[in-house]
Amino acid sequence: MANRVETALEDAVARAESGAAPPLLSAAVRHAVFSGGARVRPLLCLAIAQACGDDDPALADAAATAIELLHCASLVHDDLPCFDNAATRRGRPSVHALYGAPLAVLAGDALIVMAFDSLARAAGASPTRLPRLLTTITTGVGMPGGIVAGQAWESEPSPLVEAYHGAKTGALFVAATMSGAITAGADPHPWRALGEKLGAAYQVADDLADAVLTEADLGKPTGQDQAHGRPSLVTELGLEGAFQRLQCLVGEAVESIPPCQGAEPLRELVRMQATRLAPKHLARSAA
Amino acid sequence: MANRVETALEDAVARAESGAAPPLLSAAVRHAVFSGGARVRPLLCLAIAQACGDDDPALADAAATAIELLHCASLVHDDLPCFDNAATRRGRPSVHALYGAPLAVLAGDALIVMAFDSLARAAGASPTRLPRLLTTITTGVGMPGGIVAGQAWESEPSPLVEAYHGAKTGALFVAATMSGAITAGADPHPWRALGEKLGAAYQVADDLADAVLTEADLGKPTGQDQAHGRPSLVTELGLEGAFQRLQCLVGEAVESIPPCQGAEPLRELVRMQATRLAPKHLARSAA
Repeated sequence: MANRVETALEDAVARAESGAAPPLLSAAVRHAVFSGGARVRPLLCLAIAQACGDDDPALADAAATAIELLHCASLVHDDLPCFDNAATRRGRPSVHALYGAPLAVLAGDALIVMAFDSLARAAGASPTRLPRLLTTITTGVGMPGGIVAGQAWESEPSPLVEAYHGAKTGALFVAATMSGAITAGADPHPWRALGEKLGAAYQVADDLADAVLTEADLGKPTGQDQAHGRPSLVTELGLEGAFQRLQCLVGEAVESIPPCQGAEPLRELVRMQATRLAPKHLARSAA
Repeated sequence: MANRVETALEDAVARAESGAAPPLLSAAVRHAVFSGGARVRPLLCLAIAQACGDDDPALADAAATAIELLHCASLVHDDLPCFDNAATRRGRPSVHALYGAPLAVLAGDALIVMAFDSLARAAGASPTRLPRLLTTITTGVGMPGGIVAGQAWESEPSPLVEAYHGAKTGALFVAATMSGAITAGADPHPWRALGEKLGAAYQVADDLADAVLTEADLGKPTGQDQAHGRPSLVTELGLEGAFQRLQCLVGEAVESIPPCQGAEPLRELVRMQATRLAPKHLARSAA
């Protein structure tokens, strides 16, 4: 499954680089996409497509690709000097650190366009699935409640904390689970809860990692929530409370998986991914 | 036709603002879309849909909307401090001047997503037209040769001038003409030349305006090509030569219109738009 994701991403990036593409923009896009990401969201999307029968694998690959390209776009823009001003990401220089802010803005823009381009090019076999697939993904990314809106809450004088967390992390997980189902011709609504629970679990894991890990552990600057005065589950619940919330959300995610032909391997995958979520020394101290 | 464009844009912005959208992001997006733009590209898109029979007006409106939202996104990002650092646009404060760089980056991102969302929501009646409509528009906007690539050429040490001009201005005009035809179920290829010629004419007009007008005339900073050392047709051909090139391109655009039921009113529209292109006192001195 990991091979399917990497191959589909490579195809999308190669198509963008073809012809007379500006070389530095091509390099910036390639750096943004191939920098050791865990591919959590596209693997989730494909796992659900498979659990639902995966009768149009090209469309499933395209949905997984689109979800990951949009995630990469959000990371490139979040790292910009006007946001986190992060010089590193996954232990490597961030896109703006390597190519400058103008090309980082444009690489993010290009990645967003590439995501929708990938969906359109794969829709030949099932064109009637495309409109719903597109709106499911635009809902997870755009306004009023997608990841762009989630990031924008950080510029509000009085952010709605629940809307902020749901939009910043949950929305793209929901898009990943629901779009996986749509690509296989299944009803997406029973898959919303899995996306919501996993998104919430990742938000807690992210807040934990930012609070307890060092830049050397994580490959990017930590302590950012406190530094920028952002809402954090660790501030709200304490370290132990946040860790318990994480365990609870993973359990609820596993429970939420609806009846389908591939339910058992999917439960196993969610449990396995979840063990990677908690910062290791925190998991040890809680055990 | 202008009413159709404004109504469709208002619907798209209202949908983005609905629910729990962050208020400042909503305000930034609204400011970006409703700031006195001439709507040249969406009107061209609709004119060609009408010339081809306009049998799915909702899809034509969505294509026009998408083209204009993507144009607005490119203006918001081009004005950012890391690019032109323009404090004004059409005589009003630019988005980043009013809302700051973070919300300007995010408003541009949101506008790109809104464009594809509008297309998906309007595809109910003609879903088989959607894939080609999408790839026509992604080609005009993304990599390797759309407006994002066009802007990126300005960060290259040795820009390919032809690729730069074609991508920066021509690509979105080609997307406008070809997508207009696609929404009406017509073959888009005969409409490529009209987009290319008009795009080239706008590029010359833009270079002329930047060279000869003042900020008070144009509502945004001028003299930017010279200040940033960017390729300009005025530098290459001189003022008189650039003006002659403009007249020639408009003539070729009118000639390129393929046989169709609405050819004559479309020729009239192109001629009329063209008279608005040349800076007025230059047109007078050439007459």
